[in-house]
Amino acid sequence: MSDAYGRAGVDIAAGNAAVARYRDVLGTWRHADQLDGIGGFGGLFKMPEGKNQALVASTDGVGTKILIAAELRRYDGVGRDLVNHCVNDILVVNATPLFFLDYFATGKLDPEVAAKIVEGCANACRAHDCALLGGETAEMPGLYAPGHFDLAGTIVGVVDRDKVPDPLSVRAGDAIVGLPSGGLHTNGYSLARALIPSDEWTAPFDDGTFADALLHEHRSYFADVRAIQAVAHVKSMAHITGGGLLENVPRTLPPDVKAIFEQARWRTPPIMTELVHRGALTEHERFRTLNMGVGYTLIVSLADAAKAVGAVPGASVVGWIEAREGDEPQAVVHPSRN
Amino acid sequence: MSDAYGRAGVDIAAGNAAVARYRDVLGTWRHADQLDGIGGFGGLFKMPEGKNQALVASTDGVGTKILIAAELRRYDGVGRDLVNHCVNDILVVNATPLFFLDYFATGKLDPEVAAKIVEGCANACRAHDCALLGGETAEMPGLYAPGHFDLAGTIVGVVDRDKVPDPLSVRAGDAIVGLPSGGLHTNGYSLARALIPSDEWTAPFDDGTFADALLHEHRSYFADVRAIQAVAHVKSMAHITGGGLLENVPRTLPPDVKAIFEQARWRTPPIMTELVHRGALTEHERFRTLNMGVGYTLIVSLADAAKAVGAVPGASVVGWIEAREGDEPQAVVHPSRN
Repeated sequence: MSDAYGRAGVDIAAGNAAVARYRDVLGTWRHADQLDGIGGFGGLFKMPEGKNQALVASTDGVGTKILIAAELRRYDGVGRDLVNHCVNDILVVNATPLFFLDYFATGKLDPEVAAKIVEGCANACRAHDCALLGGETAEMPGLYAPGHFDLAGTIVGVVDRDKVPDPLSVRAGDAIVGLPSGGLHTNGYSLARALIPSDEWTAPFDDGTFADALLHEHRSYFADVRAIQAVAHVKSMAHITGGGLLENVPRTLPPDVKAIFEQARWRTPPIMTELVHRGALTEHERFRTLNMGVGYTLIVSLADAAKAVGAVPGASVVGWIEAREGDEPQAVVHPSRN
Repeated sequence: MSDAYGRAGVDIAAGNAAVARYRDVLGTWRHADQLDGIGGFGGLFKMPEGKNQALVASTDGVGTKILIAAELRRYDGVGRDLVNHCVNDILVVNATPLFFLDYFATGKLDPEVAAKIVEGCANACRAHDCALLGGETAEMPGLYAPGHFDLAGTIVGVVDRDKVPDPLSVRAGDAIVGLPSGGLHTNGYSLARALIPSDEWTAPFDDGTFADALLHEHRSYFADVRAIQAVAHVKSMAHITGGGLLENVPRTLPPDVKAIFEQARWRTPPIMTELVHRGALTEHERFRTLNMGVGYTLIVSLADAAKAVGAVPGASVVGWIEAREGDEPQAVVHPSRN
């Protein structure tokens, strides 16, 4: 296996090693009010005073998409991307957002740039009736190069504990409904920047420029998921971020089943095809690094599949659940030929 | 006024301008469940299901203290500093921590470094019976230089709404109790790095090295404040971070009073005196940029002052409240001669 992502400077093995080391240092300590989550999407905490609810929290960043936004001085989208990313993460356990806080750090503070970024956060918060409860703006000369910045955020939501999806209810024969992504969302940008150099960003691509394709919105799936839940029972969900379909869906499955995806069943955005071609990405690489056009998955019974797909434009059955033998991989994609 | 901090690359005016621009872009929109806070220390949100409680959240970073930690490869303290900073911020509205999430971003991920930083967070969380509920580790080549990293965190706590301090109860004649800081905590590091170059950091200073003094722990005042509250009624509190006594205490005062501090009433850490001397910092600069030895303030009636001070070793009455006429400054420090 070649390692295009590694060549682009992102070491997935180091990431996994860090997570393993976190387990070591944390040991068995766990707060008495921490509750079990699903696959690491959002942490759950027993609601104080609440008999039946849990708070759900998640922290995320925008990744090196911000380097493209900074270079092109297009600041309005990254705040929206960040909020939507966080919303989707806690949506996996069915949480509804309550409030969000941002962290914006830069080398030399430009109040206009900061305001555009916070405005992007605020608009996306408002679209979810989520309070922008606070934030931190840090000017850190020496850490960030001129024009560079980092952006991270934390969301806190609420869920009725008996409404948290139960991945153990997933059975062989269930359908996997995929919701479309129009681009990279917030993952794979170190690879994308390595394969599409900045002097090409303003060149025409697809129905716009490379910049348009690269900065395509990280969609929120909140309304789509609620629309599907209104007509179908959802057993498990996954937000397809770093790790792609191959790593994110298994996090939300019981050990005795596997997910089989068939790429022909959904539309692959042209920017994905371009990256696969330029980087000669292996099948494994492309589906572990990029979302490849599926931004969010929901597992429903086969009987519910048509209703679920009908509830959301662009949704499709992207695969199905099969029984898993021994240590078979928990996710397999049958790629399209292209 | 000279502007030592500005010469060190931190533009306080730009920070204030950014905050003003945030107000513009946010307009009058506010979530129905947002509650009034105190001086921007922690955002308050009505507890779902809870009749009488509020959630309190705050996001913070460690500032350029991390550049010193990175250069010296001393990673264990910054996680603790971050958690303690967050704990102190929400303590201003009397909140008790529930959970914390970290954001760690670096150019090239070293799992051992990441683990040391997260371990620092975890230990400080555990000391406050606060869950480390989640976090994000981001590898971002091109944004962070080799060996560099950024660290931010978000804390969520809980408070009984009728236990939130009422700054409007502060009266002329009240005493200001100060809790000691042993160093810079997490503010003033861009200035400190400009005044104490890195080739001096391992040189002897005070009872250790400059490195020891610069990396001195950002203390948590949680236990101290609870000890004082057990014996005295606390009217208002402030966490002395960026902006020092001059900017943080006024945020927690009603408009008709002012705070008068007398530096001789507390111990000024040697590192502060060193920075004042090296930078020829004006009185205004030193008390607006550095905590100068007071990390947290509590306002109590004069009758309660002796009890409050007696409850915590190192606490002292650092000043008092006077009536304010017109647009007089809301905080004045009478410096020691030294």
